[in-house]
Amino acid sequence: MRIILCGFGIVGQSLAKLLESRSYDLYTKYGLKPKVIGISDSRGYIIDKNGIDLCKILLSKRKNGKITKYRKYENGYSPSDLINNIESDILIEATPSNYENAEPGLTNIRIGMKRKMHIISVNKGPLALAFPSLIEMAKYNNVLLRFSGTVGGGTPIINYAKNSLYGEKILSFSGILNGTTNYILTKIEQGMTFNDALADAREKGYVEANESLDLDGFDSAAKLVILANCIMDMKVTMSDIAINGIRDITKDDIENATKNHCALKLISSCNKKLCVGLQEISHHDPLCVNDTLNAISFTSEHSGTQTIIGHGAGGIETASSIIRDMINIKYNIQNNEI
Amino acid sequence: MRIILCGFGIVGQSLAKLLESRSYDLYTKYGLKPKVIGISDSRGYIIDKNGIDLCKILLSKRKNGKITKYRKYENGYSPSDLINNIESDILIEATPSNYENAEPGLTNIRIGMKRKMHIISVNKGPLALAFPSLIEMAKYNNVLLRFSGTVGGGTPIINYAKNSLYGEKILSFSGILNGTTNYILTKIEQGMTFNDALADAREKGYVEANESLDLDGFDSAAKLVILANCIMDMKVTMSDIAINGIRDITKDDIENATKNHCALKLISSCNKKLCVGLQEISHHDPLCVNDTLNAISFTSEHSGTQTIIGHGAGGIETASSIIRDMINIKYNIQNNEI
Repeated sequence: MRIILCGFGIVGQSLAKLLESRSYDLYTKYGLKPKVIGISDSRGYIIDKNGIDLCKILLSKRKNGKITKYRKYENGYSPSDLINNIESDILIEATPSNYENAEPGLTNIRIGMKRKMHIISVNKGPLALAFPSLIEMAKYNNVLLRFSGTVGGGTPIINYAKNSLYGEKILSFSGILNGTTNYILTKIEQGMTFNDALADAREKGYVEANESLDLDGFDSAAKLVILANCIMDMKVTMSDIAINGIRDITKDDIENATKNHCALKLISSCNKKLCVGLQEISHHDPLCVNDTLNAISFTSEHSGTQTIIGHGAGGIETASSIIRDMINIKYNIQNNEI
Repeated sequence: MRIILCGFGIVGQSLAKLLESRSYDLYTKYGLKPKVIGISDSRGYIIDKNGIDLCKILLSKRKNGKITKYRKYENGYSPSDLINNIESDILIEATPSNYENAEPGLTNIRIGMKRKMHIISVNKGPLALAFPSLIEMAKYNNVLLRFSGTVGGGTPIINYAKNSLYGEKILSFSGILNGTTNYILTKIEQGMTFNDALADAREKGYVEANESLDLDGFDSAAKLVILANCIMDMKVTMSDIAINGIRDITKDDIENATKNHCALKLISSCNKKLCVGLQEISHHDPLCVNDTLNAISFTSEHSGTQTIIGHGAGGIETASSIIRDMINIKYNIQNNEI
């Protein structure tokens, strides 16, 4: 199985590590023999049809902070040049999420699809801005589009809703889909000011380089778009969501919540309407989790309400979701279920 | 798809209702056209190769408290007579769980397998006492054995671990698998005595007819056996579990737990050893759920720890799990994955 990897940040590197350390296990258990033949980063790309030496490239990244010194590195090219230059079975899109125009991820995915590559995206931008059209394009080109890692990181929220609840109709859901803001809200509930809590989260490395993505609810909204499309069959994009972040939180809000035995949480909900905003959640509700945890409650027609809780982010966790998607794609190809 | 239903208690009746109310949906969405051709209860059975009229039989049960007045009722026969008497695609085993000899469920399942019927069991007894041999027998007879409803009721705990986490190795798990004892422990934590809490749970209809199954941990242990076999590939039965219930709880235990910001919970755990017993669980642990809720935390190699929470019991919820299993069996037959 030939693989192109666009983006060599934390997730890309974690994936390279996992592919190395789990190669025996993946082959014996799942018949999976992944061969990474192309890697791009922000400066250029590497192509090696015989398979890139992942150990060497990881070492180069650790030593030099970049992969430009790898033998076959081609400087000054974009990922789309890479995708256009080589045939591959799978394209993994792991460049940073961007909710203005979703680039470069959106172009990477589109070119990959046209060139008949199955797509695994952990980049939320293209899905948040163009989910319905990407699904259509995947069908048209007869390729698969998978994106388990975009919601919940290693916690298989999408798989749970799609596979574990088959035969059931999900009526609504709501969840805490952003660990950073949940951490900040937890600290505020414990007595910190907003600014101190934000500084603490920054210090721990929880906040995105563009902190508005977390604080203003865009990351939560992007995940809501993905869930609404793939679980509820809604054809929506970011612009259909009413988005409020956590910056406007007041002392009164917090005191009122405490009085009601509740905590204020940034909730992404889909119940006819789609919205992201602060809500009071009872301390007894399983959804009321703290620190960087994510949680989501699905209400289904006959199976009641179920809550899944887990850590939403982390390089290795997200990389493990990519491997799940690879196994799923292999399985679907074998069963001609495209 | 021809179906024999053994047991017409709450789950059996809920299934009949669901099959009636969802028939259009099941056919159009999943191509499923279930036809119940045999039903047994403790007194005898009904056979109708053209399909039993489920509305009539539900009405008869509601009016008379039994189904013996249904036109074709054959009095004085055992379910095994029914299974031996007619050909069917699926046998649904929904007689009461019994952890002494697992009868009549165990015999029903064995005869069904010999007669090449796929089995859906919501009866925990046969699985708790004979899981490894039943799996072997299913393989030998080339039939499928499904049992989603035995753990978590409508909450698809088994499906989650088997399907949503594929590609992952689950290292350990622990959970609250019995809602009745969790309700009693919640009430004790809120200040009730053990006896008052038990009386309250009885009044609400939460306690099994044989209350030892809940209070002495046998129901939790049976579910632990099922999970250990099907998720961890362990070949164990009830006799391999160290089982302690909740009767020995003391005031000191409760006070100590509170001092440690914990609650006492009846935990079924699989971490090298298999055991059921009271444990202190931190109030901040997602596992620490109250009332009749069930919860289970899986720790996997690369995806961290994830917790699933939901109501474990209920007729309609368990019946919905049977329908999930039916869809799964149909899917597996179509793909020749037996």
